[in-house]
Amino acid sequence: MRQHQTIPIVGGTGALGFGLALRLAKAGRPVAIGSRDAGRAEEAAGRVRDQVPGAQATGLENAEAATRGPIVFLAVPFRAQSENLTNLKGALSEGQVLVDTTVPLAAAVSGKATRLLGVPQGSAAQQAQEMVPDGVTVVSALHTVSAASLSKLDTQLDEDVLVAGDSKDAKGRVAELISLIDGLRAVDAGKLETARLIEGLTPLLISVNIRHKAHAGVKLTGLPEDLWP
Amino acid sequence: MRQHQTIPIVGGTGALGFGLALRLAKAGRPVAIGSRDAGRAEEAAGRVRDQVPGAQATGLENAEAATRGPIVFLAVPFRAQSENLTNLKGALSEGQVLVDTTVPLAAAVSGKATRLLGVPQGSAAQQAQEMVPDGVTVVSALHTVSAASLSKLDTQLDEDVLVAGDSKDAKGRVAELISLIDGLRAVDAGKLETARLIEGLTPLLISVNIRHKAHAGVKLTGLPEDLWP
Repeated sequence: MRQHQTIPIVGGTGALGFGLALRLAKAGRPVAIGSRDAGRAEEAAGRVRDQVPGAQATGLENAEAATRGPIVFLAVPFRAQSENLTNLKGALSEGQVLVDTTVPLAAAVSGKATRLLGVPQGSAAQQAQEMVPDGVTVVSALHTVSAASLSKLDTQLDEDVLVAGDSKDAKGRVAELISLIDGLRAVDAGKLETARLIEGLTPLLISVNIRHKAHAGVKLTGLPEDLWP
Repeated sequence: MRQHQTIPIVGGTGALGFGLALRLAKAGRPVAIGSRDAGRAEEAAGRVRDQVPGAQATGLENAEAATRGPIVFLAVPFRAQSENLTNLKGALSEGQVLVDTTVPLAAAVSGKATRLLGVPQGSAAQQAQEMVPDGVTVVSALHTVSAASLSKLDTQLDEDVLVAGDSKDAKGRVAELISLIDGLRAVDAGKLETARLIEGLTPLLISVNIRHKAHAGVKLTGLPEDLWP
């Protein structure tokens, strides 16, 4: 456990990114909230410090935030994913892990949020892997946790996070971080290409939510107790 | 409740179809097991009667089985789906509901079971809807329940079945049948096109199962108690 290491969250002022920052800060981890605008990032960091007494949260411009720790979360809408990855090319460096949380909803191109776009590389995660600098490893995760639930600290979470990636070591480290959040269990879903299937869970849950007025999450049944070696 | 109505299962000698026949028979419903070969169908029906005292199970050739009740389950591998639907053209009739359970795994064309094929219509369920006679309504369901678990009556199920379809009435009737099976909850996942996303859950679970040596199922969290009106 590397408890002192800061966790950068690119797009940390968005709903998912902010919820993640809040929950990781609550778990005692320093977070670096990134935004296009450093002022908005610092404002969000202030809200984290207000809600979590003793939180170590700073707000920075995205590229600066991305240099602050070994595991960087990318929590931006799909329509901005490619632009953000271009902007991060000079910031990310060999050995870092990028956790891609983006979902190619058709809503990104004014279509429906219940439909998934076809991404030429296979998935948003694979697009990220294609765009990061050499030596940066992409792990795909956190597509199905409701940003609304994550952002409300009094909401008790109880669900799984499917994690995909080609590096077992990187997946294990990301799983460790996710498991710090009370009520989340990380499940190894396979190689990075599996992200194509996992990303499809988000429009599926949105479709279920529309019908049942809910914030549904996913839990897998029938798994053993110890999921990570 | 139409307790006397027979439930036809095309492909009822396969792992999923047989498990389904077993569980529905246990729930007190008459089942008509279909197979390419009437003899094999009758043999499977015999096994149902052996395991479920008092079961009303008959074995018939697929097309004959399909005429025996209003809601027909199609439980064949994807590589045989199109052929089966062609053979059922003269058997299915207006007003019937076809529950498509097929998943276009790449394994159907000697690829991996952790990968999903692209189906021109969008999904196996939409291919089914294109191929059934006019007036037959397709509902997509039962992609994520492990055939192995279903076939062992002493395995306690505890998972969800995502149901998709364009007819609310047909979905509701299928949900009612699925809910007869102890431990299964049917969840309305939206229109038939959502089947594309649901079918992706199967290769995803297979990928998880490979890693964790499990028979994983899916459960959605955060849903209200009453899912069907």
